[in-house]
Amino acid sequence: MSALVGVIMGSKSDWSTLSHTTEMLDKLGIGYEVKVVSAHRTPDLLFQYAEQAESRGIQVIIAGAGGAAHLPGMCAAKTHLPVLGVPVQSSMLSGVDSLLSIVQMPAGVPVATLAIGKAGAVNAALLAASILGHQHPQFHEALKKFRTEQTETVLDNPDPRQA
Amino acid sequence: MSALVGVIMGSKSDWSTLSHTTEMLDKLGIGYEVKVVSAHRTPDLLFQYAEQAESRGIQVIIAGAGGAAHLPGMCAAKTHLPVLGVPVQSSMLSGVDSLLSIVQMPAGVPVATLAIGKAGAVNAALLAASILGHQHPQFHEALKKFRTEQTETVLDNPDPRQA
Amino acid sequence: MSALVGVIMGSKSDWSTLSHTTEMLDKLGIGYEVKVVSAHRTPDLLFQYAEQAESRGIQVIIAGAGGAAHLPGMCAAKTHLPVLGVPVQSSMLSGVDSLLSIVQMPAGVPVATLAIGKAGAVNAALLAASILGHQHPQFHEALKKFRTEQTETVLDNPDPRQA
Amino acid sequence: MSALVGVIMGSKSDWSTLSHTTEMLDKLGIGYEVKVVSAHRTPDLLFQYAEQAESRGIQVIIAGAGGAAHLPGMCAAKTHLPVLGVPVQSSMLSGVDSLLSIVQMPAGVPVATLAIGKAGAVNAALLAASILGHQHPQFHEALKKFRTEQTETVLDNPDPRQA
Amino acid sequence: MSALVGVIMGSKSDWSTLSHTTEMLDKLGIGYEVKVVSAHRTPDLLFQYAEQAESRGIQVIIAGAGGAAHLPGMCAAKTHLPVLGVPVQSSMLSGVDSLLSIVQMPAGVPVATLAIGKAGAVNAALLAASILGHQHPQFHEALKKFRTEQTETVLDNPDPRQA
Amino acid sequence: MSALVGVIMGSKSDWSTLSHTTEMLDKLGIGYEVKVVSAHRTPDLLFQYAEQAESRGIQVIIAGAGGAAHLPGMCAAKTHLPVLGVPVQSSMLSGVDSLLSIVQMPAGVPVATLAIGKAGAVNAALLAASILGHQHPQFHEALKKFRTEQTETVLDNPDPRQA
Amino acid sequence: MSALVGVIMGSKSDWSTLSHTTEMLDKLGIGYEVKVVSAHRTPDLLFQYAEQAESRGIQVIIAGAGGAAHLPGMCAAKTHLPVLGVPVQSSMLSGVDSLLSIVQMPAGVPVATLAIGKAGAVNAALLAASILGHQHPQFHEALKKFRTEQTETVLDNPDPRQA
Amino acid sequence: MSALVGVIMGSKSDWSTLSHTTEMLDKLGIGYEVKVVSAHRTPDLLFQYAEQAESRGIQVIIAGAGGAAHLPGMCAAKTHLPVLGVPVQSSMLSGVDSLLSIVQMPAGVPVATLAIGKAGAVNAALLAASILGHQHPQFHEALKKFRTEQTETVLDNPDPRQA
Repeated sequence: MSALVGVIMGSKSDWSTLSHTTEMLDKLGIGYEVKVVSAHRTPDLLFQYAEQAESRGIQVIIAGAGGAAHLPGMCAAKTHLPVLGVPVQSSMLSGVDSLLSIVQMPAGVPVATLAIGKAGAVNAALLAASILGHQHPQFHEALKKFRTEQTETVLDNPDPRQA
Repeated sequence: MSALVGVIMGSKSDWSTLSHTTEMLDKLGIGYEVKVVSAHRTPDLLFQYAEQAESRGIQVIIAGAGGAAHLPGMCAAKTHLPVLGVPVQSSMLSGVDSLLSIVQMPAGVPVATLAIGKAGAVNAALLAASILGHQHPQFHEALKKFRTEQTETVLDNPDPRQA
Repeated sequence: MSALVGVIMGSKSDWSTLSHTTEMLDKLGIGYEVKVVSAHRTPDLLFQYAEQAESRGIQVIIAGAGGAAHLPGMCAAKTHLPVLGVPVQSSMLSGVDSLLSIVQMPAGVPVATLAIGKAGAVNAALLAASILGHQHPQFHEALKKFRTEQTETVLDNPDPRQA
Repeated sequence: MSALVGVIMGSKSDWSTLSHTTEMLDKLGIGYEVKVVSAHRTPDLLFQYAEQAESRGIQVIIAGAGGAAHLPGMCAAKTHLPVLGVPVQSSMLSGVDSLLSIVQMPAGVPVATLAIGKAGAVNAALLAASILGHQHPQFHEALKKFRTEQTETVLDNPDPRQA
Repeated sequence: MSALVGVIMGSKSDWSTLSHTTEMLDKLGIGYEVKVVSAHRTPDLLFQYAEQAESRGIQVIIAGAGGAAHLPGMCAAKTHLPVLGVPVQSSMLSGVDSLLSIVQMPAGVPVATLAIGKAGAVNAALLAASILGHQHPQFHEALKKFRTEQTETVLDNPDPRQA
Repeated sequence: MSALVGVIMGSKSDWSTLSHTTEMLDKLGIGYEVKVVSAHRTPDLLFQYAEQAESRGIQVIIAGAGGAAHLPGMCAAKTHLPVLGVPVQSSMLSGVDSLLSIVQMPAGVPVATLAIGKAGAVNAALLAASILGHQHPQFHEALKKFRTEQTETVLDNPDPRQA
Repeated sequence: MSALVGVIMGSKSDWSTLSHTTEMLDKLGIGYEVKVVSAHRTPDLLFQYAEQAESRGIQVIIAGAGGAAHLPGMCAAKTHLPVLGVPVQSSMLSGVDSLLSIVQMPAGVPVATLAIGKAGAVNAALLAASILGHQHPQFHEALKKFRTEQTETVLDNPDPRQA
Repeated sequence: MSALVGVIMGSKSDWSTLSHTTEMLDKLGIGYEVKVVSAHRTPDLLFQYAEQAESRGIQVIIAGAGGAAHLPGMCAAKTHLPVLGVPVQSSMLSGVDSLLSIVQMPAGVPVATLAIGKAGAVNAALLAASILGHQHPQFHEALKKFRTEQTETVLDNPDPRQA
């Protein structure tokens, strides 16, 4: 299964968040690659990564970063593929800095921003399935299946007093 | 040209923001429909819209709303199509309430969130082109053309002291 | 004792907050029902719940949710019963996102919003007693009794240095 | 028509916000009284007002205030009637101070908090109808009528491009 | 030694903060009384306390409270003595709600606001000494002595690498 | 009438705020001096001012400043007189930066902080009267008179609908 | 006079802020160049600019940007010259997004961040003089002269009541 | 090796942050001195330190402080050397107060502000190397070496799944 999604993150410490992305991609059966690419420490690698992603078959890039999180936005500046940004919770400001650094992109270069932390990491994978499913219907099917099961889990356990 | 993008907004007052979305969709040659659908005042219409969008040929939904902005998230709850959320600047809190209400979705139901206001509205259209371009290569071409021209405009006018 | 109050919450993890609501309802002698209803994972159930609540005898709905908390507002969109919203503390933003997502409703569809977390959960029950007491005077009596005891507890223990 | 709702505000300057409350109460046919009562400049009047409201036939109190907005909370401390708080937008902090001063009440004394500014002022009236309607069914009827018309206004004007 | 300073707080849980105030008052040799007085649970006691403080010899009131912290402001509304407000750190919002609820008083009724938490509690005592010292020079002497020792402690231990 | 209050501010542009302080001091009959003293542009003057204030007969210092507002805190570091801080609204951040820079003083050196802007400026004068009144009873009398008139103004004009 | 300082900005609209930088550089006699370089619209130009700046004689780079302001940080990622960041006030969030996007750089790649808006733009030039003055003493002289005049302007006009 | 950098901090408790500065200075081979200097508890020492720093050979001052952090700004008011400010994370407000108190300096007196906490402390040392390297090329060499190694560490460990 070749990689359709590139999952990149600014540092190894972001893996505890982004691993939720790859877990969900596994569940949905979507091929991916995963790599540390730092906007600030390896800027040339970032540009190279973003420029070559499409030719390597990548169709969606998921980028997670914290603090002054420039990785998703700079990646988006170098590709026309959809870039999904996951704000990683920063130790100082609860991820508000990460969120604003990712979402407040100027007109011209969008980043599709998800929620701060784990929820955003999971949802980036689901959004990727939603995007890829137009061309690869099996991902829409996998997504619908996940969504249906998710709904049933709630419906089957309506009483919060039961574990 | 049939509509591939559904542009919805919570009230007519959001049009001054969302009109930037449709302008850009026009520029990119992407067909769309546009409609006021209020999560709070017309909840049934919202559910109906989200449920039927795919069968009507819609592939991406762009939803703009302000304040306690529930439109994008509730739309996402009723479809597996990609939902792009545009936080409209609220009169009281600069759009922070709109942004957080849209972006902080729980794991399971993503909304691809853009910047507050006009920048986000423009970028929703560009992101739609990026998403649709996998299946409709002409939109990737249109997107590349827009991006190239945008770059050239900066390169051709490097001196900020000249109008 | 039939249920006059419907206590709903977005996920089982909200129960540690909302259990303070039902504890207080028990203390006040107000009948209630409690259920997990997720705006995003079970939207149809939410609409059905809100539509049918009145006919089942529910007179007040208490809805707790966190993050992009759409449950109270969407519930209010589907009923004319008073909806009381309890912002559950989110792990990332201290509940500011929950609070703004619940309280900043547009003109036309109100949610009576309480404090973030446990205090708000307790107060939702007290507010329900205050509302229901007009028609059911015993709840006004129970409320007055609780308030008197609460006052006396402070008056009887004026010295903070004593446990 | 005797007054069922007491509308109070901290200063005359709050009237530009609270007038939206009385307009909506008029539309719903709910009797009310309106008065300036300042928590800080007339604290004894506030206590007297809150203590005597019920005996004068008031069933719901709507209190609007800005900045360190103590009016709703102190009113709630002196009555078991439902107190609805409307945060008035402050000139310095967009009403965040008003909102937090009103909503973050401790366990034991609730204030039903609405949105900042005009939206909250309108919604306080609608919430009052929702509360009063249990005992006075004509207000539930008026509320349903308002809500239906509101929905129809959106449904009849779906195109944001038309004025 | 009769009490010149009245130290009040909204609940026993505030004592872990306000005990820093009384420790410093002890160090400065200033007589005080300490009492739980809740604006919301014992509003009549609060009014009585504020009204009678001066006649009992109190010259400065220090009031600590958290969340929608109405104690300092309502106390100030009922006395012309200087009221010093200490925002207690709330569990949800780091004390931002407490700070804004105390400091943002309207023109006409001031509260002298100190820092959130322990620092503010200590400083309330020092400010009381500063205020009382005009009439009671021994407190200015005690204050100068404390300040001199504080300065010398820093000067005598300039190396942060030594414990 | 010799000056008992020193009113200082960081720049001439702060005068539009601090003039409300001197207006109220005039109304209360309290002698004062007024001067531009900049913590950052005239640090030596600030130290000299703070050191010599007491010997010149000043009993209370009111310091207004905006942005990274260091004037009140540095003044307090150089005197044991009560220092009252007025956060001036900054053009960028609504005065949040001014407020936090003034109020969040470390344990050991207090600044009595008032509300942001005009309300705080007025209240600084009232607080000065409250402090000075212990030694100069005429200021307590003037303060009581002001407070009584303020209360009567509200009581005499209870209807917000009348200008 | 060859350029020692490179002044770059993300778009022409930033010029109304950054022109305050060049005005001050002119006053201090420091040679500079000025150019629009957009991180998102001309990423390759940004990298080229940052890489070649030193060899062209640039010793300090001043970069101004707004919103998700990636220009200063990405510039710093590609040079070891000091990069001074000026947050431009954004229309939506008062520049909080710009400030956090610039200042919250990860360990390893610093940006020397100045205040939001005009004050920061002026100060970037003064900081450049401070940095360059070690090697070019005339800039330390110019800086001292400016600082002295600035101090004298305050000292010569101590009365805020005079224009 | 004589001291070129003066590292000062407001209290010993800041050492756990600022020790990251001196560790990095050691790594870069830059001589420094380190001292506790409190703006509020030892204001005269601060002025003396800032005034005499240059004559003692100091070329860059790094000042760390928390809360109402006046140390960097007041230091900058008394020297024309570059002052680098490190906001120390405060226990109450995550360092937002420290950051705003340091960065929002008025036009005329700059502080080069770094990120909150450890990242800012490390980066202050790197920025010092960047500044000093113009006159002392060995620090530019050390900086380049550090940056190269930092880049290689990322490039050599691209897989976040491996420790």
